[in-house]
This record gives sequence, structure tokens and C-alpha cells, in this order.
Amino acid sequence: MPFLSSAWYVAAFSREVVADAPFARTLLDRPLVFYREPGGTVVALEDRCPHRFAPLSRGRLIDGALECPYHGLRFGAAGTCVLNPHGDGRVPAGARARCYPTRERYGAIWIWMGEAQQADRVPLPDFDFLDPERNVTSEGYLLTQANYQLSADNLLDLSHFQYLHPDTLGSDMMARGTVQSASEGDTVRVRRIMQGEMLRPFVGQAFGVPDGKAADRELDVRWQPPGLLTITVSVREAGAPPEMARVGMSAHWLTPETATRTHYFFAFGLPREMGEEGAALVQYSVEGLMKPFRDEDLPMLEAQQRAIGGRDFWSLRPAMLPIDAGAVRARRIMERLIADETALGDTAGIQAFEVVR
Amino acid sequence: MPFLSSAWYVAAFSREVVADAPFARTLLDRPLVFYREPGGTVVALEDRCPHRFAPLSRGRLIDGALECPYHGLRFGAAGTCVLNPHGDGRVPAGARARCYPTRERYGAIWIWMGEAQQADRVPLPDFDFLDPERNVTSEGYLLTQANYQLSADNLLDLSHFQYLHPDTLGSDMMARGTVQSASEGDTVRVRRIMQGEMLRPFVGQAFGVPDGKAADRELDVRWQPPGLLTITVSVREAGAPPEMARVGMSAHWLTPETATRTHYFFAFGLPREMGEEGAALVQYSVEGLMKPFRDEDLPMLEAQQRAIGGRDFWSLRPAMLPIDAGAVRARRIMERLIADETALGDTAGIQAFEVVR
Amino acid sequence: MPFLSSAWYVAAFSREVVADAPFARTLLDRPLVFYREPGGTVVALEDRCPHRFAPLSRGRLIDGALECPYHGLRFGAAGTCVLNPHGDGRVPAGARARCYPTRERYGAIWIWMGEAQQADRVPLPDFDFLDPERNVTSEGYLLTQANYQLSADNLLDLSHFQYLHPDTLGSDMMARGTVQSASEGDTVRVRRIMQGEMLRPFVGQAFGVPDGKAADRELDVRWQPPGLLTITVSVREAGAPPEMARVGMSAHWLTPETATRTHYFFAFGLPREMGEEGAALVQYSVEGLMKPFRDEDLPMLEAQQRAIGGRDFWSLRPAMLPIDAGAVRARRIMERLIADETALGDTAGIQAFEVVR
Repeated sequence: MPFLSSAWYVAAFSREVVADAPFARTLLDRPLVFYREPGGTVVALEDRCPHRFAPLSRGRLIDGALECPYHGLRFGAAGTCVLNPHGDGRVPAGARARCYPTRERYGAIWIWMGEAQQADRVPLPDFDFLDPERNVTSEGYLLTQANYQLSADNLLDLSHFQYLHPDTLGSDMMARGTVQSASEGDTVRVRRIMQGEMLRPFVGQAFGVPDGKAADRELDVRWQPPGLLTITVSVREAGAPPEMARVGMSAHWLTPETATRTHYFFAFGLPREMGEEGAALVQYSVEGLMKPFRDEDLPMLEAQQRAIGGRDFWSLRPAMLPIDAGAVRARRIMERLIADETALGDTAGIQAFEVVR
Repeated sequence: MPFLSSAWYVAAFSREVVADAPFARTLLDRPLVFYREPGGTVVALEDRCPHRFAPLSRGRLIDGALECPYHGLRFGAAGTCVLNPHGDGRVPAGARARCYPTRERYGAIWIWMGEAQQADRVPLPDFDFLDPERNVTSEGYLLTQANYQLSADNLLDLSHFQYLHPDTLGSDMMARGTVQSASEGDTVRVRRIMQGEMLRPFVGQAFGVPDGKAADRELDVRWQPPGLLTITVSVREAGAPPEMARVGMSAHWLTPETATRTHYFFAFGLPREMGEEGAALVQYSVEGLMKPFRDEDLPMLEAQQRAIGGRDFWSLRPAMLPIDAGAVRARRIMERLIADETALGDTAGIQAFEVVR
Repeated sequence: MPFLSSAWYVAAFSREVVADAPFARTLLDRPLVFYREPGGTVVALEDRCPHRFAPLSRGRLIDGALECPYHGLRFGAAGTCVLNPHGDGRVPAGARARCYPTRERYGAIWIWMGEAQQADRVPLPDFDFLDPERNVTSEGYLLTQANYQLSADNLLDLSHFQYLHPDTLGSDMMARGTVQSASEGDTVRVRRIMQGEMLRPFVGQAFGVPDGKAADRELDVRWQPPGLLTITVSVREAGAPPEMARVGMSAHWLTPETATRTHYFFAFGLPREMGEEGAALVQYSVEGLMKPFRDEDLPMLEAQQRAIGGRDFWSLRPAMLPIDAGAVRARRIMERLIADETALGDTAGIQAFEVVR
């Protein structure tokens, strides 16, 4: 299945692209190079010199332009060749690297992989709890050797906490929790509620529930295309009123590197008003989650990918459980968006996207 | 070329599948999981949860059932889902992992890869000299990165001892030995006789021929589909009457992991009446053979496989020698059995198999 | 694109094929084995026993023939089986390994990969400055994981010295040098002249230009099919008369291992009359070049190959600069020669080759 082009993807965390060096990353099977203009604006270009296909990301930044490391052609922000050091210096037709629109927000660099002129018409999704002006945040990154939809499935059905993360995120009550899923436009929402749950210390400590006390926990997962999720966790002592709950929010951004590899960006944010405590908590969350994500989720996702191989997911006729409803909704939305984009052709892709939102 | 499905293959040595943990192995390109029921009976299932394709072999055994490590579905001996811990607990249609018939005999677990209901109609092959009740045995295992037929070729033409194993199994007289090959039904037999042979110490010691004494050696190889061999070696001092010969028997079981990888199981057995001496001898044989098998046969088989690549063996038009007669008979039998099975379809495969036996 | 068969390729340096052991190397996707007959003549055979496809290169040399390590067949200089040690010893029809014509000259073993009987009609190319009788030489070898044409492109446009080898071979003036390219028959020549150039110490020392003195440097590259280059470098102090220039010559021989891997042989030669100084200089050149070739050129060539993948070079529509003229000429010549050979079929390939030369 092709990728959805006309969409905002997260390309990198802001801190990954520094001022004085190009940064290479492959997204949607396309090798890209990112660098910052003198003013700080991020430029994203195809990471392939149009002359002899050298990787521009191995070149130097000179006078705000990116120099090819092989023959010294220089490329500017729009991907045009701004200097040919050879002979009479004329720049040949076709000496142009494809340039992709970018935005920088929520501590991340966003990229539009479809037709450039359509990017302005689609707003970035909302992750205000990560706005660095008003929040303190912490971030993690993992490269997963599996299709990005398998990660979305994983996040849209958190019952797996009980079996895959029994010592950290899980409990013996996850499977018996109540689950609701719904979609609003192209957003899918899955809520899971556990009452009187004995939390593992990792979760209990984060939410201030003393060891040995039962808790009521709600997990609220919101997904939107192409793979952007917000997870809101509310925890209170069992039976306490809802306004006593402590709430944690995290973002989970899935960007395909290829059909079988995924950039997984995740981040926690809390209001700056929380001071030291908030800062400690977001750091605690990211550090504590890195281990189950890397040592438990990744091997599972990669084993799924190996089992699927090059085949279509549905061709294996997965058995369906009610807990899969959210993940299936999200898959169906992506299939429709991609089919629409394919039907309308690349240049019209954006219209299809807008109509369905 | 496809594999022969309707046949008994060796899946593992008995000791490989323990009581309290699942065991994963791929056979004929199918990932499988093996575990023991509380009574000890071995269950073989497709190693892929029908829900989201997680490897069941990473799960736990609970109450005699195998729990999926991702979402906790449990599967019983027939591959049916016996527990859905989610929601109302209903088990969805299609939540079933394919189950394969197994037998346990001769220190090994045997598996039937074709239609399950046909398994009862085909008896296991006879390897009575390995029956652990009456024999003391020793076993070895190697994974070979080559097609299983190349290993059968290897074992059906032991003239290679002289060139590939000159310091252990070979001698300068192997090539000049007399060779007879014949088939009875679908069994192929190759006998090779050397007279007045100066054995290498490894063989001389095993058969009690003093250093410096010539010996008469007979190698009798019997092959049957899909790749089950018995090798009987008889050795006596040169000129001694046949009844003075010492005889050693070994089994060589070839099970495809994939088209280009083979599970090679081998085992020696001697009657329990031989006591300590027999036990020492079977252990000596397996330990002594591991080195030439692994360091001399494997690299050769793997080099052959690389030379053949994805091509059909016959398309390379191998030159034919009289010593190849047995191996060629075995290849022709397999080709016929597979063609018959393919022609009749999977469900009827077993009939084709029985007719030709 | 297929390879050009009817051409002399360098298979190895002479020293690589010793008297008493076979030598394995893959050329043009064909695994080959080389050995020396008792008189020293090099034999090149397909490295695959015609019997069961064992690699002959793992066998022994006995009585001037090569013994297969698996079943002991022996092969002589023409690739014919000269001994079958089995049974009645008859050699079966078809027991023949393909034999390739070879020559030994300029410190190298040359091989003809097309129809054998045509080899005599095509002379070896001229690399007299490497004739070991009259010259002292030094040699280097690298395996490049990229198509051989990318290496030819690299050598036919030495402007890359400035960007890829700034600390050794380059200078700030390379891009501004004057460049001429021309072809004579199937030979392509590219001359690049820099005047008043500040050389890096590595080059200055080799040509006797004191640090801090400007120089005039001329680089003269001659290419001929299938990938045989001579590079002549002339350096003198800036403004000195041409006869004051010191001149260094090197050969660069590109032989495809596969479509995406290249054997790169390079060698320097100076007249024996130069004595110790010449010997030191050719050694200095090879040793000094190994680092930029291996650490700068190879990663670039391999990155280009990854960017191209399995696609045709031209399908990526490379932007064209005047400096590419020589490389493009060479590519066009190869395309024509290969197209002619393909059109005429393998047996007639040589005629096509001769007509176009």
C-alpha cells in the first residue's frame, strides 16, 4: 500500500536539527536532508544531488547554502542550485533538489510530503500541551522495524499493557476494563476505564497513588491521520471524585521510514506552572517508558512484521475482537484517504484530504 | 519446487521440547510452536496468533494452554482459542491456530505437515535401533544453510569421505570401492564395499581394528521419503568372516526449514545389553562426527547452495557419474511424490503418497 | 544493463595467483578459479565443478590439475576432466568446466570473458609504463560496492579532488581549471590544467614543489573500454617551461565483480633508471592514495550506488555540467558496444567489438 503524501508528518524533534550541520533522515522511503537557514528556519530537501546523486547531507553549510560533497554545487532553501563553481558557473537546467514544506512547532519539525503548494491549506494538528512556551516537555525516540500501522494498532488497544508490560504499565484488570471507541470525522477515540485497579509502582508513583491502594484509571487515546496520537491518562484513588484525578498527556507520532520501518516519536508535556515537579514527572515518564517500549513493544511489533512479511495485513484474515474496533477504524480511514489520493492523482491529493476531514 | 506435505518429518529431538516452556521451530517454511500438555503429549501449532499474528512461542503455558504474549488469548491442544480475557469473553470465529498431528518415537518428535486426518493412515518409518527402551542412543543436530536434497545427495554417495573427510571417515580406497544401488518401492539403497582398507584412527578405534591392520568395510545407506536415512557400517579385519564384523547404525533425518535451510538430525543407537561400552561408543560417534559434519560437510553444502542460487538443480545440467545413481533415484522419487501431491491437491495428497509406497 | 563480454579485463595482480594454490575471484557475476600450471601459465576456469557444483577453488593442485574437493574429479588447463577416480574411471560427457583465455602482462593477469576463440584477435591494451622489465611499480587494490561506471565517472572528472580530497589531492583551484575532453575512436581523453595552484603537501612532495610555491598542474586522463584508465600528472613550478615538469603515470583498472561491486586495481610505474628514488616514489604514491581512495572515494561511490539502487543511471535524469563531458562519452561508448554485442549475439560479439574500435 502506498503512503499518504498529503499530510503533515513529524520529521524530527527540533533539537535534532542543529544550526551548523545538515541532518539526514529517510521518510516515506525518500532520503531527505534537513538544515537550518541562518535565521533558524528549517529547510528540507531531497538528500540526493541532482548532478551525480551524492548525499547532500554529507556536505557543508556555507553562506546558508548546502554544498554537495562531491563536486561542490550549492543548494539553497528552495532546492535550487545557487552556485556552480565549475567553468563559466552557469547553473544547468534540472540542477534542483526537491524541496518540502516544513513547520516547527510542539518541539518538532513537521514536513508536508505531498504537493508543496497545498501545505498552506492544511493546518498542523493540535498538540498544545507540548507547546514549549507554556509547558515543560520531555521526548523519546525509537526506530521500529515494523510498519507504522502496527504501532497505531498497538497504541489504539492498550489492553496489551496487561500481557506485554505486566511489570510497569499493566495490571491484572486491564482486560476486564470497559472500552468504548468512536470516530469523529477522521479522528478515532478509544477510552478504556478500569475501576479498583491495583497499579504497578511505576504508574502509582507517577500519579501519586500509594502502594497497596486501589485506583480508578482511564486511558483516552485519540488518533488522527497519518499516525498522530494523544494519550490522556487520568488516575485517582478508587472511588475518589473525578476532579481529584491527576492527568498526564503524551503525544505519539508515527512516521514511516519505509513500509517496514517506523520513526516513533513520543513526548510528555505538563504546564510550566507545575514547576520542578512537572519537569521531574515528564522526565520520569519518558525515561521509565523507554525500557518497556524498546524491550517489549519493539520486539513484538517486529515479530508481527516478520509474520506478515510482504503481504497485505487483511490478506492474513486476522480474527476480530471488540477491542480492535478503534484500530480497525483507523486502518479503514487511512485506506480511504490513500485510495482517494491515488484516485485523484498526486497534484489533487490535497483536495481529497480536505474533503474527508 | 514445493515441499512434500503428506509425510512424517522429524520436528525436534524429544529432549528439545520440555514440560514448561514453548519451543519454536520453522519447518517447510512454516513457523511452528511446540509444547507439552500436562500428560506430556506434544502439541504443534502454527506459531502465529490468529488475532494479530504475535508469535505464540513467546507466550506462557497456563493450565495446559498457550497464552498469546500480546493480548492474552489462550490456545488449546487443537489450536482452538480456549480463553478470551477481554470484554464478554466470547471467542470470535476464526480465532484458531492451525494444529499439526505429532507422534513421539525413537527419541524424536514427528510431525505430519499435510491434511491432519490423513496422518493416522501412514505409519511412522522404522528406526527401531533408536527405540530408547531397548537401546542407548546419542544425538546431534546441525542447521545447514542448503536445500535438504543436497544433504541427501551427500549421504547417498559416501565416496566423498575420501576427499572431504580425509582425516576421519575417509581413506585412500573409497573411490575404488564397489558400489551398488537399488530401489525397493520408494526406498533407495546404496551399498559401498572396500576391501583391505587402511582406516583412519577415528573409524578404526570405533570398530576395534588395530592401527596398521587392513580392514573390510561396508557402508549401507537406506533412504526413504522425505529425507530419512539409515546408515549401517560393518567393519572387520581384512579377510575375516562376515560374522566377525562389528556393526554401527545411525539415523540421518533431514527436515527442510526453508527451501535453502535444513534441520539435520542424526543419532546413533546400540542395544542396552552392550552396557557401558555401547553407551561410550554412541557418544564417541556423535562427538567425533560433529566436527567433520560441521567443518567439512556444511561449508560444502552451503557452497553448493550458493552456486545453485534460486535455480532448479537440473537446470544446471550436472555431469552424471555412476556413483550418483542412488542420489538421482531419491531425487526422482521426491519429484514424483511432489508432482502427484500437487496434481491431486492438498486434501488428496495422502492417497498419492500411499499408492507409491 | 549486461556486461561487455568481448573485452580484456584485469582479473588479478600477478602476485595474487601463486604457484601452489588456487585463487577464487568473481568477475562479471561469474565465480572463477585461477591457478598456475607447472610452467607458470595462469589457467582460469569456472569455479564450479560440473558434477555437483562444488567450488573448485577449495580443492588441491595435483600434478598440474585441480582436484574437486568434494568427489575428487580433476580438471586440466582447458577445463576438461582429466581424472575420474571412481569406478571404471570413465569421464562422463559434460564433465567440463568452462575455461577462459588469460594473458599475463604489466604485472597483472588479464582475462577474456567472451568467446574464447576471439581472444587472439584482440590485442591487450598498452600499459608499457608498468612493464616490470623496464619499470619499478607499486600496486593497490580496493573492492568497491558500486557499479564500475561510477568509478569511471569519478576518474574522468577530477574536479572532485577539490571537494572530496581537500587535504591531499585537491586544492582551491581545481574547479576553476580549464578542461578539455575529446574522443579518438573508443578512447576518451580529459585534460584539466591548473595554473598558479597551491598544492597540498602530499602532491607537492611527490613532484618536488617546495611548500609555499605555486605550481602549474596538468591532469591527463585516458579511458578505454571496458574500464581501463591511464592518468598522467605533470607538475612544475608556476611559469616554468613544460620540459621542467615532473611526470607521474598511473593505471586504473575497473573490473565488475557484479553489477554493484567493482574490483579496483591501480598501479604506478617509473623507469628503472630512476633507481631508489623512483622505487620510493611509486610506493609513496600508492600508500598515500590508499587513504583518500578508501576513506573518501569509496563511501561516495557506495552512497551513489545506494541512491541509484536497481534503477538505470539515466532514468534518474542527472543534471549535466560541462565537466561531465568525458564521463558521458565513456558511458555512451560502453552502451553502444554492449548494444552491438547483444544484437550480434555472444559468438559474434568480437566482431562488433573490433568494428567499433
